[in-house]
Amino acid sequence: MKFVKFRKGNQLGIGVFHGSTVWGLLEGEPRFPGDLTRLIAGGAVVLKAAAEVLLKGDVIDLDTVTLLPPVGESGKFICLGINYPAHSAEVALEIPKQPTIFARFPSGFIGCGADMVRPAISHQLDFEGELLVVLGKGGRHIAEKDALSHVAGYSIFNDGTIRDYQIATPQWTAGKNFDGTGAIGPYFVTAEELPPGGINLILETRLNGRVVQHANTSEMTFGVAKTIAFLSEIMTLEPSDAIALGTPDGVGFSRTPPLYMKPGDICEVEITGLGVLRNFIVDEGGYASLSKR
Amino acid sequence: MKFVKFRKGNQLGIGVFHGSTVWGLLEGEPRFPGDLTRLIAGGAVVLKAAAEVLLKGDVIDLDTVTLLPPVGESGKFICLGINYPAHSAEVALEIPKQPTIFARFPSGFIGCGADMVRPAISHQLDFEGELLVVLGKGGRHIAEKDALSHVAGYSIFNDGTIRDYQIATPQWTAGKNFDGTGAIGPYFVTAEELPPGGINLILETRLNGRVVQHANTSEMTFGVAKTIAFLSEIMTLEPSDAIALGTPDGVGFSRTPPLYMKPGDICEVEITGLGVLRNFIVDEGGYASLSKR
Repeated sequence: MKFVKFRKGNQLGIGVFHGSTVWGLLEGEPRFPGDLTRLIAGGAVVLKAAAEVLLKGDVIDLDTVTLLPPVGESGKFICLGINYPAHSAEVALEIPKQPTIFARFPSGFIGCGADMVRPAISHQLDFEGELLVVLGKGGRHIAEKDALSHVAGYSIFNDGTIRDYQIATPQWTAGKNFDGTGAIGPYFVTAEELPPGGINLILETRLNGRVVQHANTSEMTFGVAKTIAFLSEIMTLEPSDAIALGTPDGVGFSRTPPLYMKPGDICEVEITGLGVLRNFIVDEGGYASLSKR
Repeated sequence: MKFVKFRKGNQLGIGVFHGSTVWGLLEGEPRFPGDLTRLIAGGAVVLKAAAEVLLKGDVIDLDTVTLLPPVGESGKFICLGINYPAHSAEVALEIPKQPTIFARFPSGFIGCGADMVRPAISHQLDFEGELLVVLGKGGRHIAEKDALSHVAGYSIFNDGTIRDYQIATPQWTAGKNFDGTGAIGPYFVTAEELPPGGINLILETRLNGRVVQHANTSEMTFGVAKTIAFLSEIMTLEPSDAIALGTPDGVGFSRTPPLYMKPGDICEVEITGLGVLRNFIVDEGGYASLSKR
């Protein structure tokens, strides 16, 4: 199943795909099943029931709505760094012996089709296409062999990064949390639609149509199951927690000369089975948005 | 005003001090003013109105309730690292040119009087006494001169850290997010009770009564106003967001031999005007709790 979360006028909506058509309901309508985050946290049975209700709703024309991040507005949002060997190499960091994690806050998130903001304070806005995994079941001390049963599904994350802020101090968190730089979407796709653990998917990032990242998710140093098991040794994971699995090589920062995103650019991240996450780069407080063109 | 959040049986409660007596109400009682986080987010007027309502409630015997973290259950929880020059020196890191930030998740938080957990996977549980500031008003691009008007109040944070996990990778987040290691409390104290920006307060951490950290909050590299201004250049700050301002020197990790906390230990952090945050160290899944003795 493939879900979208959207805003139509000032109403929140949830939709589900049937073929290439989206059917959905708006908040306030009698059968509206509730926010997608809570449906995901309800588990597979709740998600399936919600899909059935949504399919009795109305056809949603995606051109007339604003897509929102399908997940990430609540719960933990844990990001892995340097999780592809070729990316570790291009940024001159060792392949880590355990997952390297940091956090992003919801204040920085945008949906597919939204403007990604180059802040006034820095022009080093870089792309990072990533596979995003969303948990449907929490737990602590989850064994690696059981970990995939905790996965509700997947989406795409563009971990937009302000590079000078990322490396100004020993911790990357500042450069990873600028408003309007973390894109999530376009859909939330339930786990059974993809290979177990999201392996063997092609991840491609394109800037103005030019391929700038191209990798296979099987190249990840720490896969989905290992990552969930590792994290659950540290902390109680909760339903709807999201984990971004790191970006492959090709980031703009490591190029000569560096390739940063600038107003007017279109950045797309595509992953097999998860669609295309497309965003339009604008300057903070700058000229009119190019989105929804 | 000095607020506590607590659990009595299975009910949530909020209390306020009048002298040394706490008056409060339980969730479900008709005049219960709502969760403390939302009251803080409501601003000074809402907090004051809530205090007046609570003072018409019942006397709360703090020995018969479980104190909960007064803040930190929702919103951002941003931690500063290496924010006291003497601490930067003892961990052999340069004094940073801008605040060094990382995040903690609510899954790791405990209140005053609760057990702090040494995990099965590592025995390197270290103390870090810190001043915690809580925002009552959000914003973006907040000028340093206006920043203190965004502060609702203060509390104490013990940023309990699993050192080997903190330094195993370039990012500290794993070692900073173990379940049961981040203590907050005992109270939430409104800003007008302390000097502007929480300056010139004595911060002391004691392990089994022995003073292990002793500093003045004025020694911080980045004070409260500078930190809020810096963060708001990056992200939209929101009411009830909390910022932990870093620990001074004296941490166990930097001693020879290292001084880690072990089951049976009592760790206290005291800050002028904010009370004593006291926790009891236990092994994960280990022997019976020593708390509430």
